[in-house]
Amino acid sequence: VILTSSPTYLGAIQSFKSYRADIQPMSGWKEDTCGVSHETLKKAKFCYVIPDFQNPSGETMTITERQALVDLSRKYGFVIVEDSPYRELRYSGTPVETIYSLAPERTIHLGSFSKIFAPGFRLGWAIGPEELLDSIYVCKQSLDLCPPVLDQYLAAEFMSSGALDRNLKKSIAYYKEKRDYMIALLEKYMPEGVSWTHPEGGLFLFLTLPDSIDTVSLYDKALSAGVAYVAGSFFYPDGSHRNTMRLNFSFLDKNKMENGIKILSEVITH
Amino acid sequence: VILTSSPTYLGAIQSFKSYRADIQPMSGWKEDTCGVSHETLKKAKFCYVIPDFQNPSGETMTITERQALVDLSRKYGFVIVEDSPYRELRYSGTPVETIYSLAPERTIHLGSFSKIFAPGFRLGWAIGPEELLDSIYVCKQSLDLCPPVLDQYLAAEFMSSGALDRNLKKSIAYYKEKRDYMIALLEKYMPEGVSWTHPEGGLFLFLTLPDSIDTVSLYDKALSAGVAYVAGSFFYPDGSHRNTMRLNFSFLDKNKMENGIKILSEVITH
Repeated sequence: VILTSSPTYLGAIQSFKSYRADIQPMSGWKEDTCGVSHETLKKAKFCYVIPDFQNPSGETMTITERQALVDLSRKYGFVIVEDSPYRELRYSGTPVETIYSLAPERTIHLGSFSKIFAPGFRLGWAIGPEELLDSIYVCKQSLDLCPPVLDQYLAAEFMSSGALDRNLKKSIAYYKEKRDYMIALLEKYMPEGVSWTHPEGGLFLFLTLPDSIDTVSLYDKALSAGVAYVAGSFFYPDGSHRNTMRLNFSFLDKNKMENGIKILSEVITH
Repeated sequence: VILTSSPTYLGAIQSFKSYRADIQPMSGWKEDTCGVSHETLKKAKFCYVIPDFQNPSGETMTITERQALVDLSRKYGFVIVEDSPYRELRYSGTPVETIYSLAPERTIHLGSFSKIFAPGFRLGWAIGPEELLDSIYVCKQSLDLCPPVLDQYLAAEFMSSGALDRNLKKSIAYYKEKRDYMIALLEKYMPEGVSWTHPEGGLFLFLTLPDSIDTVSLYDKALSAGVAYVAGSFFYPDGSHRNTMRLNFSFLDKNKMENGIKILSEVITH
């Protein structure tokens, strides 16, 4: 059994399914058992979460929610996998302590160079208790022996030269503007009944449309009209929430973004 | 069920085990069913083989053996995974047709840049029927999305510039000399009762010692004496053949190689 937030990262769902794991989504962080039965919690090996600017929702777990998850994991003996590829990309608000810092004895913290250096590098890092990392070494070795050596050298140089810090400042200013602009466009163009998250960082906005709209079947129509999105239900392990979608604000320039949101709102309205 | 040769590549065994596959070694290519029961053959999803200069044995499958395996796979409906990272490194003899060329409809041929460009690049290629490659794309995507982009560009440039062909000629001359030298040293130093393979290419020699010698327990002694090897039993899915070992002739210079073989023969003798 693997616990996840709901929604959660599509690639994680695919990866867990390839090992035929029993994926059990948690309904939130407020209830005593996060909406999962006592029996399931006892069987859980680990809980996979993206606490900072989640993919796809863009939401961030509060310190209270993180502490509640840690308490649960200590009570039931499961490990927490804290996937944090967007943590460095915060545009507003205050950083929340990592889950790893709250429970270093039972958390694996995952970081990535994809969003702060270059996505094509396929490099990241893992921080955690030695015995858990030892298992990761063995798995990683059986998959690909090791990450590419040249890319590791380049990333090391990128960090030690100070280029990472300079680049990060630029990225944050760049993406912040795009986030603010997309939210302004949504406010301007979206019809009533559509709501969206207000992420403090990361790359994604998550839209909730009226219940009657199915974003999976709407997709072809949107694409022919010239706009693409990822249907939100793909991020739910059970395929639910078919009235949601993920938008990415990091890539498009302002003109294309305005045009895209305009088209999208028309597709949703008609 | 996954069929393999016996011995076979350690990394493949580890990888298959991580998916809890039932690994069934084939005893050879001569008998009707390669030493595997009719029932097991019917359950086999694929057969993993390294037909050229196998890791660890250095041996090459003859065309008759390849054809026999293809016939078997057609009869029982399993796929053949032809792992061929050493094929380009042939120092003597004549190239044997790939299994892929004998059965393109049911074979996935795997190649690697590790031995002809640089091992640190972690790049390779797969050739096979489209519907099988489609499944590979999905698996690969759930593992790491894609191979590193910079490395792919560099490898493409390495090929199109002609540097690959020039480098390959040099590599072949370089490794051939080392292979010949290690075989000459084994003939000179090894005690009676020790035999070894005579690979026509690749990087490895496989030694068979007298039955009374256990290369796993001999390892610490060898290491303190200053010589390392890989115990052959690690390459047998069932951990048998504890009187075998793999030697790598590609790395050491002649002086160190002579010294190493001398020490090894003393460790074996005493």
